[in-house]
Formats: sequence, structure tokens, C-alpha cells
Amino acid sequence: MTEKTIPYKIYLEESEMPTAWYNLRADMINKPAPLLNPDTLKPMTAEDLAPVFCEELIKQELDDQTPYFEIPKEIHDFYKMYRPAPLVRAYCLEEKLQTPAKIYYKFEGNNTSGSHKLNSAIAQAYYAKKQGLKGVTTETGAGQWGTALSMACSYLGLDCKVFMVKCSYEQKPFRREVMRTYGASVTPSPSMETEVGRKILEKHPGTTGSLGCAISEAVEAATNLDGYRYVLGSVLNQVLLHQTIIGLETKAALDKYDIIPDIIIGCAGGGSNLGGLIAPFMREKIRGEKDYRIIAVEPASCPSLTRGTYAYDYCDTGMVCPLSKMYTLGSNYIPAANHAGGLRYHGMNPILSQLYHDGLMEAVSVKQTEVFAAAQEFARVEGILPAPESSHAIKVALDEAKKCKETGEAKTIVFGLTGTGYFDMYAYQKFNDGTLTDYIPTDEEIEKGLSGLPQIG
Amino acid sequence: MTEKTIPYKIYLEESEMPTAWYNLRADMINKPAPLLNPDTLKPMTAEDLAPVFCEELIKQELDDQTPYFEIPKEIHDFYKMYRPAPLVRAYCLEEKLQTPAKIYYKFEGNNTSGSHKLNSAIAQAYYAKKQGLKGVTTETGAGQWGTALSMACSYLGLDCKVFMVKCSYEQKPFRREVMRTYGASVTPSPSMETEVGRKILEKHPGTTGSLGCAISEAVEAATNLDGYRYVLGSVLNQVLLHQTIIGLETKAALDKYDIIPDIIIGCAGGGSNLGGLIAPFMREKIRGEKDYRIIAVEPASCPSLTRGTYAYDYCDTGMVCPLSKMYTLGSNYIPAANHAGGLRYHGMNPILSQLYHDGLMEAVSVKQTEVFAAAQEFARVEGILPAPESSHAIKVALDEAKKCKETGEAKTIVFGLTGTGYFDMYAYQKFNDGTLTDYIPTDEEIEKGLSGLPQIG
Repeated sequence: MTEKTIPYKIYLEESEMPTAWYNLRADMINKPAPLLNPDTLKPMTAEDLAPVFCEELIKQELDDQTPYFEIPKEIHDFYKMYRPAPLVRAYCLEEKLQTPAKIYYKFEGNNTSGSHKLNSAIAQAYYAKKQGLKGVTTETGAGQWGTALSMACSYLGLDCKVFMVKCSYEQKPFRREVMRTYGASVTPSPSMETEVGRKILEKHPGTTGSLGCAISEAVEAATNLDGYRYVLGSVLNQVLLHQTIIGLETKAALDKYDIIPDIIIGCAGGGSNLGGLIAPFMREKIRGEKDYRIIAVEPASCPSLTRGTYAYDYCDTGMVCPLSKMYTLGSNYIPAANHAGGLRYHGMNPILSQLYHDGLMEAVSVKQTEVFAAAQEFARVEGILPAPESSHAIKVALDEAKKCKETGEAKTIVFGLTGTGYFDMYAYQKFNDGTLTDYIPTDEEIEKGLSGLPQIG
Repeated sequence: MTEKTIPYKIYLEESEMPTAWYNLRADMINKPAPLLNPDTLKPMTAEDLAPVFCEELIKQELDDQTPYFEIPKEIHDFYKMYRPAPLVRAYCLEEKLQTPAKIYYKFEGNNTSGSHKLNSAIAQAYYAKKQGLKGVTTETGAGQWGTALSMACSYLGLDCKVFMVKCSYEQKPFRREVMRTYGASVTPSPSMETEVGRKILEKHPGTTGSLGCAISEAVEAATNLDGYRYVLGSVLNQVLLHQTIIGLETKAALDKYDIIPDIIIGCAGGGSNLGGLIAPFMREKIRGEKDYRIIAVEPASCPSLTRGTYAYDYCDTGMVCPLSKMYTLGSNYIPAANHAGGLRYHGMNPILSQLYHDGLMEAVSVKQTEVFAAAQEFARVEGILPAPESSHAIKVALDEAKKCKETGEAKTIVFGLTGTGYFDMYAYQKFNDGTLTDYIPTDEEIEKGLSGLPQIG
């Protein structure tokens, strides 16, 4: 064994924490396509977005020039409660795998929301508060985002209304209770509380909901309530911006020990955690300073990058949100009922979509039974029971580490461990019982989803 | 506001981690009374204990002279996966309370077992493995200990059989699934698998179990299986020894910033976390070097220190374990059915019992509705949803900080935040719904429990 001069956990000092978020768009040669107004099909303006989003967040959403946005002191102080997050050297995993690879993971699960979502939740809640709003509305699928937002809102004294995808509401009662403990109201979606919810229920009476539908309800609720705005936990550029705290900390920690990764891996649903993790590395790649392999991992049952199309599409089922150019499976696409975790969004963040389109990033899809097997393998040696979402990245990290064992290459692998699986034990139970199954959509199903895309130049 | 030169989280470097556990008994003037053999009523010898416990652990259990036990390298390496644990300065809580008090908490929840229990689980599993055993048996109540042990056993390749108190097994299915994910077998107790279980079921067919009963089953299972020993997550001196890693780290972190606490607070069930936290501070107090206020907090529904008797008693309901001199409510005492969390053991660790008897420590009991209210208040500003057990310490820490607000004293308060409440949402749900209730046993109930005490000099 080599001398372990690198600790098990690399913690930055508070003074070394990033003081600004990094806006990757500023360095992109091909900028992501603008959001379009669904009525006019013209690029969304700040005015168009003002009824739905907070002012400062709109600025961040539309700005593709400013390279850094300073993190306000209040947010920075909140970050200090649970950050810096550790960059962990997976010594135990390396030994178990008998691989020459050096494996690192950035662990974002050491807070009660159980994931990286809190990084953007506090930012969005802060700007809402600063604007003098009463509260915010949002949707949540797996539940991490709703939990994170309820924590941020309770901290700042904002009201928080969460529309929770119905199947998740039923399978994860304890996620709901965490949100309630933090003072949020939680409504299963689709609900009778919104017009769009009532329409969907009329059309599909037995539906257990989808993320796209919950988004539509939350947007409608925000626009109908005085002093409320809508906030979103992924997909948007502003969210990816806030999540760059992950990548900036990761890079600072690696730099401290002169470590240069060969491969960077993250799971991809809406794309914000992956985008946040890779942003400072992608900057160097775009500028030709370094050449990293960057891998997005998505579920085989919701394969927007690997089987979707790069086109303008609606962000939500109700078609009330802006149109976004992205890799998409169509806004009506809903993963099969046996899909257990999050990562169930039909589209992908526009920045990541553009980078993937430009060949700067790879994407692979993996089946959920192999994902849970990887999760269990990881949990048993690294002591952390990972979220199903994060375990997509684990699966591919394990695969790459095993390849290194075969080839004898001592590659350095960094992956994002976005959260813990403590509220996902229903899915783990299925895995433990051997009743968890896979589903790979047929070509016909994919085509059906894509056939509904709006026809835009 | 004063200059924040002390960071939000004080992390020790890996090189600053304690390399030995501290045996408080070595410095005690009045040593704890010896365990007695229940058949002969003579002090237990290593030979007496060998069929039940591992050899090295027996040495640690019986030794009241050796001040330090070196932490084996394998255990130290495992500790590095999730330790050092942060000592957190509760700046947000202080600001919320507008108190001049300085509040710190040692947070042990950043691992999948969700608590400090892993500190002793890995030690006990390590010694079992070193002795060449096949596996271990244990009981678990709230579930943290069973989870921690299953993690440690899976890491070392040991079999792990857990008897889980039936009401907990039913209310916490997800705790069970975490243990299964780590490869443990989990049996609701009382069960038909042991003679003592069958007897108890015959006598009390509808019982939802108790910790004392689950201990009896686990001990019986260990002695009947070839290559197995029994391990216990609290109460024993060996467990308190391993948990001194908490206090040693806390003291090292405080010393780094020249902080001297005025009050040290911990929750007390079996007593091992509290004993571990206070050990190095109590050493100074015994030696007359410092004078700390040390407060044990226990549930009003299971008040062994505040309403029990200091006497020899059985450690388990089945009366198969050694007799221990301790503060006890009687081995048949079972907290009322509405008691939600752990801290439901009828007795108290012998070291703590002696210290309390000698006036070196205070004890208070608190009601569970006020405990959950404190938990919620804490969660909303400090971002961590605490375990119900840990919240007993939070409740008293808040009380002391509020007193400081009244008197204007800037006392330094340190408390043990032993774990997270992520698997306790059933109890939080009751609290959120307003259906959580209190129970304070009557004097008659306490007397009834004590009337069953064995009559020993």
C-alpha cells in the first residue's frame, strides 16, 4: 500500500470556501439557446418571467456573459452550517475492488435535506425574501428538493407550498413529515387545488402524477397567489449556477493536493448537480487547458441524453412554462411505474444539453437493478447508504475502477455523491426482497414521446 | 456582533484524532461496583463472561486501572471514514435565541447509522473478528445500534443477528431495511426463536417487547450458536470506553480554540454516549483541575437517575445477564406505550451511576412533547433534524441558553447531538399532528418496578 498522505476526507477551511458562483455560460463558445415565450415563440425577456420568478433569479437565468456572481453574505453564512462538504478519498472502496484507480467522491448528503438541493434552495429563498415576497411554491418528486426548500424557507421565515408527485407522496410519507416539521404545506399532485391539476385528474383519474404535472400546478399556484413566486430545484440555469459551489469546492480540494482527475462522473436528471460539479473543470476543457473525460449517467428508463432529441420543448406537462432547447423525451413522457428514484424529468438543463451536443461530455444510461447493486456494494465499504439518484454515478464509477483493475491504469476518478438514501428505503426494500425490476422503453415509446414536440425552427 | 474567529464547524485534522480510548474508571476515587454473577452473587470473572462476550472486550469491561486503551489501527482507519465528527458552534441558534450564551454541539450523526453507536459497533465487531468468531447477536430498540452493528459487521465480513424490539420493528420498517441492506438478519422481539422469547410470549401474548427482553433473547441466541458472541450497544463499561472518542475529540477541538465550557449536557439512556462525552472533562473535575456543571437528561417516562434507586439489579428482563449496581427502575420496568424514542432502558451505566451517586453530575428529566418542540426549534435554525434521544439534551441546552439571556451571563454550553431523526418520522408525524402525549409514571408505578429488585447486600 502507498503512503496515505491524502486524508480520507478533504475539508476546506471556511476561509477557503468559494465566495462566488461560476457562470459556465460566460466561457461557452456555443451558448445555450434562449428560452422562448410559449405564446410568442420569441426569446423570454425579464418582463415575461417576472410574474413567475424572482427578479434576481431572472437576471441569473438570462445572463450568459457574467462569469461570476458573488454569493451574498447571508447565503454564505447559511452554507457554513453544512458546508464545505467533504471530498472523500474512497480508500476502503479501492481496497475492496483491488483497483489501482484513485477514487474520490464529493459528498453532499451531510444535511437534513439529504442532498445538494439545499445549495440552490437557500439561494432562491434568499432572493424571494429580499424581494419582499410572502412565500414560494414548488414541486418535488423524490422529495429532496421539497425538503431543502422547506428548510431554507423556515430559516428565512417564508411560506412554502410544495406540490409533491402523488406516487412519491404515498411512498415517502416520512419525506412529507420532514417538510411539515419545517413548516411547509405539502399537497399531493395532481390536486384539485389548481385548474391544471383538475384537468389532468379529469383526463387521467387514476394517475399517480409526474414531475411535469407538479411543475404546472406549482407555477399556477404561484401566479394566482399574491406575493408568491415559483422556484424550481433543477433544470434551470440559475439552479446550475448555484450548484457550482459543488464543483468549485471539489476543484479547490483537489488543487490543495495537486490532484488532477482523469474522469468526472455525475448522475443526470434535470442536470443541475452534474452541471455544478463539472463547471470549473469544463471551463478548463473549453479553454483547452485540460482534457477531462466527463460522464453523465442517466436511468435507462428516462434516457433524455442517450435516446432523446435536441430540440425546443415544453418544460412542463401543462405547457405553461417557457420553451427550452434541450435533450428531451417529450413533455408527456413519464417513466414506467417501476422506476424507483428521482431522475425522472423528461428534459435536461440547456447548458448541459449544449455541451453534450458539442461533444464535450459523454452520457451513459444504466438499469436500476444494477444501480441498487452498486449502491449496496458502496454502502457496505464506504459506510454511506447512498440515494438511488447518486447511485447512478456510483455504478459507472465502479465500472471505470474495475476497468482500471483490468488494464492496470491508476486513473483518478471523481464522482458526485449527491445525497443519502435514508428516505428511499421503500425502494431498497424492494431491492432486498428481489422484487425491484428494470424497464427499458421500447423505440415506439420513445417515438411516441417525441411525436408531441412543438414544431419550432 | 462579535468577530467570528471560531468557525461554524471545528474539524480536527486526521493527525489530531485521538489514538486511545480513555478509561475514566482509572481516575475515579470511588470505583463502580463490580458486576455480580447472578448464580453465585460473586464478582464476575473473565471466565464467567467468556461464553457471552469477546475476550478483549471482557478485559476492557473489567479493567478499572488502565487509563488508556490504544485504538487498533483497523478501527482507527474505519473511524477516519466518518470521523473526526464536527464540533459545531451554533451561531444561528444563538442569534435566534438572542442569548449571550455560546452554544456548541458535538454532532455524531454524519454516518448512515445516524448516531454515535458506530463508534462502539466497529470496536466490538473488530474484536469478535480478531477472535475468529463467525458472528454476533444483539438487540436494538430505537434501531441506531442495530444499524451501526450491521454496518460494522458487513465491513468486516461477520454475520449479524439483531433482535429488534417489536414495537420498533413495526414502527420503523425502514430501519429494518437499512440493516438488511447491510446484510443483517432482523427478528422482532419477543420471538419464538428463543426459550426466553417463547416464555415471555406465553405470559404476555400481546406484548410489543422491551429492550430488557430483546437483550435476553440475543444473549440466549449467542450462547446457543457455535462461534457467536453477544454484543451490546450501551450500558456496559466497554461501550462507554469506546464512546470516549466523542469526549476526547470534543476536548481537543475546544482546546484548539482555548474554549472552556461551563456546562456539558448529554442525553442518558444506558449512559454510554453521555459517559463518552463527559469522560475527559470528568477526569479534570475529579482531579480538581476544573469545575464543570455536567447534566444528564433523561425522559420523564423512564427516569432511572431522577426517580430510580442505586442498587444491584438485573441488566435484562430474562435475568440471564450479570447483576450490575446502578440507578435502576427495576428490570421489569417498561416505559408507557406512548413513549416515542429510545432512552427506554430501566438502568444506567455503572460508572455514571457511581458519579451521580457521588454528586459529580446532575440529572434532570424532561417530557417528550417539550423535547419534540425543542427538536423542531433546533432543526429550523441549525438545519439538522435531530434524533428524539439527542433532543433531550437540546431541550436542556435551550433552557440553559434562555436562562443566560435573562441573567446576561455569557456561559459556554456544550451538548452532545448524538444523532439524526431521519428514521423517527413516525414520532415527528405524531408531534406534527398534535397527537404526541406525555406520560409521567405515578409513584406507585415506580415503586412497583423497584419492588422486584433482587435483595443483595
